[in-house]
Amino acid sequence: MKQAAFLFDLDGTLVDSVYQHVLAWHEALEREGIALSIWRVHRRIGMSGGLLVNMLLRETGVAIDPARIERIGAHHAEAYLRHAAAVRPLPGARELLAALDAAGIPWAIATSSRIETARPTLDLLGGAVDRHPIVTRDEVEHAKPDPDLFLVAAERVGVAIEDATVVGDSVWDMLAAQRARALGIGLQSGGYGEAELERAGAYRVFADPAGMLHHLDELGVRS
Amino acid sequence: MKQAAFLFDLDGTLVDSVYQHVLAWHEALEREGIALSIWRVHRRIGMSGGLLVNMLLRETGVAIDPARIERIGAHHAEAYLRHAAAVRPLPGARELLAALDAAGIPWAIATSSRIETARPTLDLLGGAVDRHPIVTRDEVEHAKPDPDLFLVAAERVGVAIEDATVVGDSVWDMLAAQRARALGIGLQSGGYGEAELERAGAYRVFADPAGMLHHLDELGVRS
Repeated sequence: MKQAAFLFDLDGTLVDSVYQHVLAWHEALEREGIALSIWRVHRRIGMSGGLLVNMLLRETGVAIDPARIERIGAHHAEAYLRHAAAVRPLPGARELLAALDAAGIPWAIATSSRIETARPTLDLLGGAVDRHPIVTRDEVEHAKPDPDLFLVAAERVGVAIEDATVVGDSVWDMLAAQRARALGIGLQSGGYGEAELERAGAYRVFADPAGMLHHLDELGVRS
Repeated sequence: MKQAAFLFDLDGTLVDSVYQHVLAWHEALEREGIALSIWRVHRRIGMSGGLLVNMLLRETGVAIDPARIERIGAHHAEAYLRHAAAVRPLPGARELLAALDAAGIPWAIATSSRIETARPTLDLLGGAVDRHPIVTRDEVEHAKPDPDLFLVAAERVGVAIEDATVVGDSVWDMLAAQRARALGIGLQSGGYGEAELERAGAYRVFADPAGMLHHLDELGVRS
């Protein structure tokens, strides 16, 4: 049997930061005079920030202008960093990563965030993170739902993407997994419902990292 | 044909306040030393505050003590009022209520909130609200998912509950509608997915009040 490997999303998958990101994007859009319902922002979280703003502007009929997109991205980073002190790791996140290390299973983190916003979030997961590949939006041309982040992550852990499993909380993770030809595991901890994750291609859905840890033996991990 | 009537939930249904309520409950729980993932709070929003705290404490294995529940409720009200300035009406909310008035269709609002937190939210909907029944948690023994709020609201508008349609954004609204023997219409604007609302009994799901307004002629409203 081939070596298994897990490629994790970060926000909403290992760390409880989705709702802070949602309100930070909402705030950033309001600062530019763009009114949008908060749930619509939530449903776009996890994709590339540029794509997110593009899609939201298109929905509201506001002109898509590169300088404005840049500005909204900067407002978001600023607002998120203001909320970041309230962010906590998700239940079981550190334990799940430690269990994979103990079983000798390679893993990496692949996030649509830039390193600037990802860094404080990564720090919540402890030192184990520094011994594994971290792929951020800075390193690829296209973030999720494009497959690039997961393709680079698989390469870094030295596993063929077809043998890797993507773990994420958003529909965009599951779509990127399908486009990369990886398996997808959905976690509900970002606030998406089970059915939405399954429709987007998740072959299994768990509540959160603790739920996944509890079912590791179903996922090809033998300790 | 019988007179139709609509019984609206407030938060997430007419007003974009769910995410502020979620973070306010999360903050209130943290102040009492109770750590809980934010998405789990989101999934409980819309039910009675007492029930919400009871269920969350049970999940975390913390002792359920009435003084503590009272305290958490007070922390929540305080935190929510701090966020309330950022709350906006949902797209189409005022227009939907005005269209029902123009068509002579009775309607009411029934919310699990106490009047203290509901008041600033109601004010966002304009003067029309003052000419219609508003039923809050203060007036019933049990809030949602118990049917009491909608039963009182139907009585106030003078329509049999079997002829009324409940409009809400949460699973708890849909369950309360079923228990009351009313029809349920789900709106996605509180952040629940379409499938979750349908599973809880919604016979139709729309994105938000604007989406429902656009389909009023499917719902027994003739202008």
